[in-house]
Amino acid sequence: MSRRRDELVMYHVAKVTEDLYVLRVDDRYTKYFEALWEIPEGITYNAYLLKTDEGDVLFDAWKRQFSSHLMEALERVTSPDRLKYVVVHHMEPDHTGSLEDVLRWAPNAKVLGHPLAGRMMNAYPKAKERFKPVKDGEVLEVGGKKLRFVHTPWLHWPETMMTWLEEEGVLLTCDAFGGYGIPLSLFDDQCVKLEEMIREMRKYVVTVIGHYREWIDRNIAKLEKLGIKPNVVAPAHGLIWRKNVDRVFQVYKDVGKSKPKENKVLLVYASMYGTVEKVARGVECELVREGMEVAVYGFNDTSRPYISEILTDASDAEVVVFATPTYEVEAFPFLKFVAQELCWKVGNGKKAVLISSYGWSSAAIEDLKKTLENCGYKSVAEVKYNAIGPTAITDEAVAEIAKKVVDAIKSS
Amino acid sequence: MSRRRDELVMYHVAKVTEDLYVLRVDDRYTKYFEALWEIPEGITYNAYLLKTDEGDVLFDAWKRQFSSHLMEALERVTSPDRLKYVVVHHMEPDHTGSLEDVLRWAPNAKVLGHPLAGRMMNAYPKAKERFKPVKDGEVLEVGGKKLRFVHTPWLHWPETMMTWLEEEGVLLTCDAFGGYGIPLSLFDDQCVKLEEMIREMRKYVVTVIGHYREWIDRNIAKLEKLGIKPNVVAPAHGLIWRKNVDRVFQVYKDVGKSKPKENKVLLVYASMYGTVEKVARGVECELVREGMEVAVYGFNDTSRPYISEILTDASDAEVVVFATPTYEVEAFPFLKFVAQELCWKVGNGKKAVLISSYGWSSAAIEDLKKTLENCGYKSVAEVKYNAIGPTAITDEAVAEIAKKVVDAIKSS
Repeated sequence: MSRRRDELVMYHVAKVTEDLYVLRVDDRYTKYFEALWEIPEGITYNAYLLKTDEGDVLFDAWKRQFSSHLMEALERVTSPDRLKYVVVHHMEPDHTGSLEDVLRWAPNAKVLGHPLAGRMMNAYPKAKERFKPVKDGEVLEVGGKKLRFVHTPWLHWPETMMTWLEEEGVLLTCDAFGGYGIPLSLFDDQCVKLEEMIREMRKYVVTVIGHYREWIDRNIAKLEKLGIKPNVVAPAHGLIWRKNVDRVFQVYKDVGKSKPKENKVLLVYASMYGTVEKVARGVECELVREGMEVAVYGFNDTSRPYISEILTDASDAEVVVFATPTYEVEAFPFLKFVAQELCWKVGNGKKAVLISSYGWSSAAIEDLKKTLENCGYKSVAEVKYNAIGPTAITDEAVAEIAKKVVDAIKSS
Repeated sequence: MSRRRDELVMYHVAKVTEDLYVLRVDDRYTKYFEALWEIPEGITYNAYLLKTDEGDVLFDAWKRQFSSHLMEALERVTSPDRLKYVVVHHMEPDHTGSLEDVLRWAPNAKVLGHPLAGRMMNAYPKAKERFKPVKDGEVLEVGGKKLRFVHTPWLHWPETMMTWLEEEGVLLTCDAFGGYGIPLSLFDDQCVKLEEMIREMRKYVVTVIGHYREWIDRNIAKLEKLGIKPNVVAPAHGLIWRKNVDRVFQVYKDVGKSKPKENKVLLVYASMYGTVEKVARGVECELVREGMEVAVYGFNDTSRPYISEILTDASDAEVVVFATPTYEVEAFPFLKFVAQELCWKVGNGKKAVLISSYGWSSAAIEDLKKTLENCGYKSVAEVKYNAIGPTAITDEAVAEIAKKVVDAIKSS
């Protein structure tokens, strides 16, 4: 593997197989992926280059701000006259931003993609001009290598597809199986913090593809039906998987179903002056005592948790606990937002527990309940208590609430 | 004025009039007021102490984390046996958190407040025990000083009241007329960046009291009817007003009506890959060229604007422009959130312009339109354009959109 670090941008060029290279750039500038998802850990864009006797094929590109680096990386593995095709798996600009620069450099390269991709190319006149749509299942032979294109709609846009390189045993999956973060190594069998990387993959799929999660199973079934059994899963973000292929397929299927992990609880609360926090911590304590795994996120006067992390833990939670103050006779605004996002990105009939403190009006729970029940959550416990200020609620009262919550979870 | 800085906490004790002191502590720890509103500028808690021949009266206290400092400050201006009354204008813990410490120190002090306050004192057993409700308009004479209590419901809770000190010409207003920030000086005629401080006051009232804004006019009318014409307006947050009293009353009334400033436009956009940003900047450019005042907030891959600032600029905007990408066939999630908050905290029939870019589905505007129209905004222009990637939309097309928006605003 060779690395370059120029102007604070690091990129990598390395062999995946004898004839396939990965070109990865590490983006630690993007703080909000899709302008939404908090990723202090950064993200990578992975392009791939296949070398054949009849010319080379580039799969995807990088975000435009790294165009200059992509050109430098490309120069190390191919040349303008050798680059025959650019396969566009997905039109989102984090993979297509550098397309025009590549095509300017390689004037004879053709562009291949899903038929719908051709209608999304107004930003890229060269690509549009040289575009040739490929059918679902179509096989292109280049220099003895077979490229089989598989349409995989809604992973993550309608025009998304994958390429199966049978000779290499490599499935190029674009967004699917991608993860956030800037992995220490390119492959999952090198210096890898595996569980962290699996979580980054889950975080990516929940936030970016979560709304279309039912398409995960469908598309995986489609791949299986086509007899595609990759040795290497090579996505456009994060690690390349070759040691843990079965595991990542399983993780992906699980996320697609928002499959609950036994005894995992997501606890989200907001606390203006500590009253709710006292109760939330009491509930957490009781859950931990019962041996449950609890992921906790609190909005308070010094902390604003990341929505992206909340959603990630929501996806495999068995139970979601909301604890809210009463804010202007409703639930706390960010908790309403979280509940809406949970419906949008996770859904799937998990258990819900709703807790609210109130001063003079106890309507906060109704809000959240309505939102969550509308998308299939089942409320198994509701607790309201009157308190302004943490000392307004005794330790005994907190313990009682905690016990009630745990009992309701266990018996439901 | 004397200042103390201990353990990184600064507080101030100074005379407001011959017999009235302000005790102010500067809180630069709270990042999210109400766990919601972004205040990197910090906030102060102002308590007041009135000295009389028959004993002293404390008005409000501080957030609990500053209890120890409050006790030290109190010791400099009164003593346990001299402290006769503690007036609680508002039960929110940023003003009551230190109450029990004060009452422990001054064992004979009585607590006075709105009748409803007594029902919110479970966190404060000493206060509850020594509580005596005061009627609306009730006058208490202490050592020749008249304290007139005026109930001012929903500024900001139902139990909120003010105290009019006629002899001092001082109106103690608690949350009302309060502002965020840590002003350089205690009074508005010292080292004051006036426009900044007025904005901090607007930001405070929009975010904290905005939902109850109709009560501003009612309560001000009530004060006027009672013949209360203060020389000094002394709130529990921010500056004490004595030079700009008329101005702050006017500002307050204006915020209560979300009164538009002529030609002020709020432009809020979200942009995942720069397409919407290009259009938003084009629109901003055209608005600026027309001499309009434009406040701009963009959600993008590196920036997440503060909701508190957006709401502040929404309050006195004449027009609100939303520019959104299409996100999963809807508007961008944070823009939906902003629209909901606008309804909740600002409302009041302003003009709205809705712009969306889309790739394959153009439904994003409907969302926002529905939310905004439901709370009285009037859509004066709607623009949809198909583009993925900023280069997919020409400068001419941007200019055309910008012109359309400006024309619609001017002719509506």
